[in-house]
Amino acid sequence: MTLRQVGEDRLLGQLLPSLALRRNVILGAGDDCAAVRSPGESKLLLLKTDCVVEEIHFGRKTDPVLVGWKAMMRPLSDFAAMSGIPQFALITITLAAARSTSWVRRVYRGLNSAARRFDVSIVGGETSNTNGPSAISVSVAGFVEKDRCVSRRGGKSGDDLFVTGKLGGSRRGRHLRFLPRIEESRWLSKHFAIHAMIDLSDGLGSDLPRLARASNLGFEIDESRLPLNSGAKISNAISDGEDYELLFAISRRDRVRLEKSWRKKFPKLLITRIGRLSQASTVNPQPLRSGYVHFK
Amino acid sequence: MTLRQVGEDRLLGQLLPSLALRRNVILGAGDDCAAVRSPGESKLLLLKTDCVVEEIHFGRKTDPVLVGWKAMMRPLSDFAAMSGIPQFALITITLAAARSTSWVRRVYRGLNSAARRFDVSIVGGETSNTNGPSAISVSVAGFVEKDRCVSRRGGKSGDDLFVTGKLGGSRRGRHLRFLPRIEESRWLSKHFAIHAMIDLSDGLGSDLPRLARASNLGFEIDESRLPLNSGAKISNAISDGEDYELLFAISRRDRVRLEKSWRKKFPKLLITRIGRLSQASTVNPQPLRSGYVHFK
Repeated sequence: MTLRQVGEDRLLGQLLPSLALRRNVILGAGDDCAAVRSPGESKLLLLKTDCVVEEIHFGRKTDPVLVGWKAMMRPLSDFAAMSGIPQFALITITLAAARSTSWVRRVYRGLNSAARRFDVSIVGGETSNTNGPSAISVSVAGFVEKDRCVSRRGGKSGDDLFVTGKLGGSRRGRHLRFLPRIEESRWLSKHFAIHAMIDLSDGLGSDLPRLARASNLGFEIDESRLPLNSGAKISNAISDGEDYELLFAISRRDRVRLEKSWRKKFPKLLITRIGRLSQASTVNPQPLRSGYVHFK
Repeated sequence: MTLRQVGEDRLLGQLLPSLALRRNVILGAGDDCAAVRSPGESKLLLLKTDCVVEEIHFGRKTDPVLVGWKAMMRPLSDFAAMSGIPQFALITITLAAARSTSWVRRVYRGLNSAARRFDVSIVGGETSNTNGPSAISVSVAGFVEKDRCVSRRGGKSGDDLFVTGKLGGSRRGRHLRFLPRIEESRWLSKHFAIHAMIDLSDGLGSDLPRLARASNLGFEIDESRLPLNSGAKISNAISDGEDYELLFAISRRDRVRLEKSWRKKFPKLLITRIGRLSQASTVNPQPLRSGYVHFK
């Protein structure tokens, strides 16, 4: 059945009662706005929206459950980058005419299981038709304690740069099944002064220069140290994107304690020091394939 | 120039510094999430997302400034329906390949002037390409005092039903230029116990039954009383949609005081009693063209 045959109200009426909902939701989907408990003035409210578009972020034949999973996890990865806790999500699906309501149902199954994984409530949903490819937009609200909010801006010259996990080759499937590093990020901000952090969504080659620019600094990377996924090359780690690992800057004085306590806390997840932040230089060296480089 | 030629980062770098921003924004667009001051625990956090899609909510040749205005004002109208104050907006534009960056710039001009009209800060923006028609999705966060939050659910049998303004014929242009009834709604919740409220986005014929159902009630309407825009018929007032006026339920004991003080406060804006909420009936009468009807 198509959306037009079923009707948007009826479809949402079927989907919304099954949504993940927690006790801090006062009014969920079905009213004009969602009304939820406010985080309190000692915390910052965090807001993020992100979307996945057919033929760009997922294929025509991608399992819709994985499409929903990815659509939810992408903005949650931005919460990891701020060391925040995501709480409430709003979904907008613009649906190609050719798509069936069972496709929407399976997308919602993926959205829902991703939301439950991090105790996020889905508090609103909308579906509208389009003559083009389908798209799923997810907006998330949550919070972070004021003294644990990590932006991209706080990096200091000489800081070590670390990445979690391994990089490169995510298009072989990991981009649809990744787990945002929220627990790791919360642990980091609880035990360490993280100066600056970003999640690697566009690839180290784009995201590291963003973090450095936001901190008014340059950087030096030892490409030979980059942790690679099996089958990935250095160039994949730099350019592929969609790793959804964390890149962060931390004082070199914390290096030993970080590496030791991380291994104890997250024995299955690699953490790798890949370089350091440096004074911004006026020269703009070309990318190199090895050794210390400024690759932008 | 197309988005691909300019690059998303550069385009957003041009657009974002000009955005409406208020002092409660700690980190605006440009970091992984926006970080803003939390409303405090005595208030409810309100969340809403809404989108406009080319060829459905606006035409190929519609002035992009008006497209942006409408995209922002639609979710703000939902804040009016809850008697809430919108504060922070996130924008997602999925852009058809044929659209130029100057089109995006003009859309942002409309988004921005709509945001400024109600002191809303635009705290994040994203633009991605699509092979289909363009779409603009706007997510808004804000607050309402706990004792002033008006849902659709609180209607009581016997309540008067009022609408603001005039209905019907919005497609002749008003759907692109409307002003959400936020000031009116805030005044209402300050001075009266509003039992239930909704904004008329899909038309009285869809939205009134939604309000009644949410309150577990039926309704009786005097169609001859419906306030019509010039050129509009009763059927337009019921079915056209996109009026973005308020429909609300209030005790009949407040009728005289409401009508009198409304005329004093808003002399240029009509308020009309169009019927009342009643016990839900098991019969489901057919729509009539005049007299008291249950039209669903």
